Amino acid sequence: MTAAIRILGIDPGLRRTGWGVVAMRGNALDFIAAGTVRAPIDGALAVRLLALHDGLAAIVADHAPDEAAVEQTFVNRDAAATLKLGQARGIALVVPARAGIVVAEYAPNAVKKTIVGVGHADKAQIRAMVRVLLPRARFDSDDAADALAIAVCHAHHRTAAAARRQAVG
Amino acid sequence: MTAAIRILGIDPGLRRTGWGVVAMRGNALDFIAAGTVRAPIDGALAVRLLALHDGLAAIVADHAPDEAAVEQTFVNRDAAATLKLGQARGIALVVPARAGIVVAEYAPNAVKKTIVGVGHADKAQIRAMVRVLLPRARFDSDDAADALAIAVCHAHHRTAAAARRQAVG
Repeated sequence: MTAAIRILGIDPGLRRTGWGVVAMRGNALDFIAAGTVRAPIDGALAVRLLALHDGLAAIVADHAPDEAAVEQTFVNRDAAATLKLGQARGIALVVPARAGIVVAEYAPNAVKKTIVGVGHADKAQIRAMVRVLLPRARFDSDDAADALAIAVCHAHHRTAAAARRQAVG
Repeated sequence: MTAAIRILGIDPGLRRTGWGVVAMRGNALDFIAAGTVRAPIDGALAVRLLALHDGLAAIVADHAPDEAAVEQTFVNRDAAATLKLGQARGIALVVPARAGIVVAEYAPNAVKKTIVGVGHADKAQIRAMVRVLLPRARFDSDDAADALAIAVCHAHHRTAAAARRQAVG
């Protein structure tokens, strides 16, 4: 019996950051937890980022993930929105890194393709497939569902990578 | 005799983040230290951001600033560059915030106007004026000089704000 690997998926945003934890044992995936870190929508930017930092740090402490995955940001937006997202994304990447966890990144299309089978999928399709893949999943926002999708994407990619290593070895 | 206030200025960037510490006693400004945090230029983004985080956290621990100031990012660049800068900027804002330090933000033009007297100034002019305002200043990069300029800008603005409060009170 192999030990379960816990994977933390993060969908970063300055106002809402979705997170989801799945456990992988062999090829079986289990839902562990998911939620949304909501940072204050006004006040000093440093204070908003600190709230995001502390919220994510508490989740890392509570769920002790072995690996983490963050969506590669979609930059086809205006510069101010891209900058905000970048700031939140910096926090989402550094919090697991500070805990010694390797953080993988996946492009949004890779996540959608892994979950739904096509590179273009709307939020309702993502939610529906997350419910199929993780029947016990409970999530309180689209961001949390996206975060679970990112965690599932990482689980599939690490299995494929291990299979390739075994085929070569 | 009033206690000196230590101000940390930060000019964030993913490859090089400049920092500078000045002490302010009344209206007198003193150079304390300045330098550049150089993060690895390749490898996983989370690892690069972690190096930036740890470098800045060491500076905060060494110099125990009372206040911090970060330049507001200039977003008139391509989306990929803006995203990179945003990620570094998120770290630059959250590290002092984690230490309980209030972080002010200043637009690049405000910094230039405070230091050089005009809103458009090149890097050589910034360096020259930092040397005039802080004769003992030593810095190892333009980013470190910019960080000192940001700290000086914050010192001037907090003095002006205090004078306004006194006039009202």
